[in-house]
Amino acid sequence: MEIRGDELRHTLSPEELREAAGQEVTVQGCVHNIRALGGVAFVVLRTGRYLVQCVYDKAECPGAGLDTLDAGCYVRVTGLARVEERAENGVEVLLHDFAVLSRPAAPLPLNLADPALKAALGTKLAYRTAALRHPRERAVFRIQAALARGFREFLTEQGFVEIHTPKITGAGAEGGADVFELSYFDMPATLAQSPQLYKQMCVAFFDRVFEVGAVYRAELHNTSRHLNEYTGLDLEMGGIADMREIMEMETAALRAMMRCVRETCAPEVALLNVEVPEIGAIPCVRFADALELLRARGGGKNRNDLTPDDEVMLCDYYRECGEGDFVFVTHFPTAKRPFYVMEDPENPKETLSFDLLFRGLEVTTGGQRIHDYDAQIAKMAARNMDPARFAHYLSAHKGGLPPHGGLGIGLERLTMKLCGLSNIREASLFPRDITHLEP
Amino acid sequence: MEIRGDELRHTLSPEELREAAGQEVTVQGCVHNIRALGGVAFVVLRTGRYLVQCVYDKAECPGAGLDTLDAGCYVRVTGLARVEERAENGVEVLLHDFAVLSRPAAPLPLNLADPALKAALGTKLAYRTAALRHPRERAVFRIQAALARGFREFLTEQGFVEIHTPKITGAGAEGGADVFELSYFDMPATLAQSPQLYKQMCVAFFDRVFEVGAVYRAELHNTSRHLNEYTGLDLEMGGIADMREIMEMETAALRAMMRCVRETCAPEVALLNVEVPEIGAIPCVRFADALELLRARGGGKNRNDLTPDDEVMLCDYYRECGEGDFVFVTHFPTAKRPFYVMEDPENPKETLSFDLLFRGLEVTTGGQRIHDYDAQIAKMAARNMDPARFAHYLSAHKGGLPPHGGLGIGLERLTMKLCGLSNIREASLFPRDITHLEP
Repeated sequence: MEIRGDELRHTLSPEELREAAGQEVTVQGCVHNIRALGGVAFVVLRTGRYLVQCVYDKAECPGAGLDTLDAGCYVRVTGLARVEERAENGVEVLLHDFAVLSRPAAPLPLNLADPALKAALGTKLAYRTAALRHPRERAVFRIQAALARGFREFLTEQGFVEIHTPKITGAGAEGGADVFELSYFDMPATLAQSPQLYKQMCVAFFDRVFEVGAVYRAELHNTSRHLNEYTGLDLEMGGIADMREIMEMETAALRAMMRCVRETCAPEVALLNVEVPEIGAIPCVRFADALELLRARGGGKNRNDLTPDDEVMLCDYYRECGEGDFVFVTHFPTAKRPFYVMEDPENPKETLSFDLLFRGLEVTTGGQRIHDYDAQIAKMAARNMDPARFAHYLSAHKGGLPPHGGLGIGLERLTMKLCGLSNIREASLFPRDITHLEP
Repeated sequence: MEIRGDELRHTLSPEELREAAGQEVTVQGCVHNIRALGGVAFVVLRTGRYLVQCVYDKAECPGAGLDTLDAGCYVRVTGLARVEERAENGVEVLLHDFAVLSRPAAPLPLNLADPALKAALGTKLAYRTAALRHPRERAVFRIQAALARGFREFLTEQGFVEIHTPKITGAGAEGGADVFELSYFDMPATLAQSPQLYKQMCVAFFDRVFEVGAVYRAELHNTSRHLNEYTGLDLEMGGIADMREIMEMETAALRAMMRCVRETCAPEVALLNVEVPEIGAIPCVRFADALELLRARGGGKNRNDLTPDDEVMLCDYYRECGEGDFVFVTHFPTAKRPFYVMEDPENPKETLSFDLLFRGLEVTTGGQRIHDYDAQIAKMAARNMDPARFAHYLSAHKGGLPPHGGLGIGLERLTMKLCGLSNIREASLFPRDITHLEP
């Protein structure tokens, strides 16, 4: 026996079904619901992406009894495809036969037949494998996949190389209190808070790199916008003339990502009524100027950072000015930024760093990094950090690094704001927060 | 100020430089080496992907002195592109000017000028950010990126959805001894040994899913083919008629991945002299038959699994038969396969599972899974497992799962064998093994 890889099955899309109108077709899926209506019944199948209406008429389907079917059964049906404008996607299948492939052991604890799932967030999380079967709940994650795909494809075109860096890290990790600790063969280790130090090291040999990977934050926050394990879209690029080049790259990347959503997720965009932003120019404001603007409106209470309320207020302001859904805030105070961030040579109290806000939420932090070995050592000394703990990281600087910078995008935050979700947990298949380690 | 995302810089490829012959060009890169030769000097730049030969002649480049340049300096050069068949890639740049963007603090501990890096594996790992600057060392990871890209692009075409599942897992993890344990806000947790249970749960709503993500194995192995953190290429697909469909999908996916390597990594394939396999049909042998074949040749000593020597012997056998570099081994004994694996209904001592061997090494494990709730509960009971610990996993079965199966490919193993590396650590940017938590 041998395997040739040329017998690949796929489930017909509504478009393909419409093209097949008048012909016998085979469709596989899960019975989403059954509605009896006089002499016939409508059996709606849920495939991996669509709902497909099937019509059961005993006279047309003599070999298989409707009473053998329940919601949740997986079936393979054959029948006549025909155009029917009143059906979902304008097509239906008149059943000639079907076979039950598997049966559920019990009805689902949630009612999937409602157009929107009527359940509180806690219930959706408690019954995760049921909730995600709802067309609207799962649609979020196709959009999320398109965002990640757009990110990778665009950066690959721009000469970036995909990297995979370790999430189990040793002494050379970024540090700080909010790390998960574990024992690695009796060595103390932590889970990476970001690929920051590794992606900078990779600039030494690839110049431009990106990573899509898990990020761990042991923060005790319990808010609608924090997860303790999330997916980071990271990039780092060498040879930059200034921080602006990084923001240019992000703007172009986001435009490509939104295009990918528009082009590959039309059904999901329509289902969720997602407003995919057209990204023209993104306004850019210095942190100090933003603070002034916010203070005039009763915000800006923290002189080193933006509060969640500030982020909302600032986005509202620019949106009302007709400047779109994104805002870059630049030149954050040095005091609150990590050791690898480059200070503004014109004003060392400010950094060459930025956040990107989207519809009221920070979705990116980025900036230029220190590339000079002596400058990095001096900065560590000023912060009472031990360079010996960062020997590998510093070996990149010692051997030579180009001027470089980068950024990290929180994929779930971007998804949440794009899809208009009120809680980030709805943008994570199996969210990890301070009380959820399951499912 | 605003950011438009339309001013993106990129470094010219050798092809673009050849097209620009006769024109003034700008190139950024790192000084790879400098060779003085009579009145002129050759300054070879290393960009993120290529080596570019530049010619320094004081008369042509009066403003910048060669004595300001050292290996490891990052520079921006301008000069005349010209065809030169003796130069790398058939093109060189006659320098008119250059600016030093950054300087190393010290020479590298390794000599990058040699065509192959003359260093032992331990040295390459100890000086990782130096070793990976060598063109041959880094080339491995562009090929690795192409494999992952080919995997994702092919599966996306086939209707698979990319998922991100948690790596911090609770009670419902796969279990077994070889897990890393950590404390998650005072709850006992482990790092996921694979996305197995989660990807099966996702079949309930997406039918076809894939994930590219980190996998953790706390195994005490210290061999040339084990890592304790590696990148898994996982897929899971519903609605299958039998296990063969999974193997068909893998065969087609591998063909697409190899095509992606061929089409996007020609310079790296040439540099490393990689033999990219043409995948026609992949031979397929049942475990019991493989054992017989091996025993006739002095192998097959373990009656429940293949030993590393067996894997080599089996691949050699099929290669000598002209059957190529891959072999599927199917129907492994039930005793050694996990609880979610489906038994062969015709012989419950065997499973509907398979390994894929490539050039003497197992690179994939896959198979059909139990989709029926009662059958899965019964299997757990027979193995003295507590179903309550797997409540979320089983909720997918309870609510209905289609017949399904999938597989996991070890990205580093595939890379290692494709590139002809003798140790898997050379196929990981920053390998994690039982003695290395750094860099």
